[in-house]
Amino acid sequence: MERISYQNGQKQAVFQQMPLEKQNNFLQELKQDYQQIVLSYFTNSGARIEIEQFTDKVFSSNLPVPQVIQIHVELIDDFSKQLKLEGRSEEILLDYRLTLIEILAHLCEMYRCHPSNYSATK
Amino acid sequence: MERISYQNGQKQAVFQQMPLEKQNNFLQELKQDYQQIVLSYFTNSGARIEIEQFTDKVFSSNLPVPQVIQIHVELIDDFSKQLKLEGRSEEILLDYRLTLIEILAHLCEMYRCHPSNYSATK
Repeated sequence: MERISYQNGQKQAVFQQMPLEKQNNFLQELKQDYQQIVLSYFTNSGARIEIEQFTDKVFSSNLPVPQVIQIHVELIDDFSKQLKLEGRSEEILLDYRLTLIEILAHLCEMYRCHPSNYSATK
Repeated sequence: MERISYQNGQKQAVFQQMPLEKQNNFLQELKQDYQQIVLSYFTNSGARIEIEQFTDKVFSSNLPVPQVIQIHVELIDDFSKQLKLEGRSEEILLDYRLTLIEILAHLCEMYRCHPSNYSATK
């Protein structure tokens, strides 16, 4: 049976307990969310709400941090291919490291200040 | 009285319980450690041991993550001034964001997998 956590009143299954197909779907969903964050990161809002929602989802699913890094790397690879096809500079992609830094810092503070109950499921 | 944590057999005072002077000394010590990491990050070893020691120290002192970011920002500012004085390009400084990403990811996994007892002292 899947373990469920409740974060901000939302039910969230713990990643390690999801069936493989559900894990893949969850990662795809996170990748789409992350893409939205990256695309709006340098706008006025700085994607504040989207970052909160993304880190809430990662935190409450107890997703291993290397998976978050993987989502970033895959997305930047996708962008890189697209920019090459269009003959445009890839320089902007370096700036997106700031997005990852902000997300990791936020996530790290969540784990530091609100120890999870799921440390056994790492 | 200061709270003490034991990490890898080492005594480590909790940051929030240190007297102000000790906090400042501790942050200066971390800044020196971080400088060593950054300077050897793109060598063969990738500063593996130094990163382990740095994150152990940050984790066991329960240092708030924004302080880690601050250490990075201050160091990069120092480097930037130095490079400007020498008339050299600052491009290398963008690469050091990778160092910060690796440290935050490592630290985040430590907090995720080993919930601290110090969440009340945030």
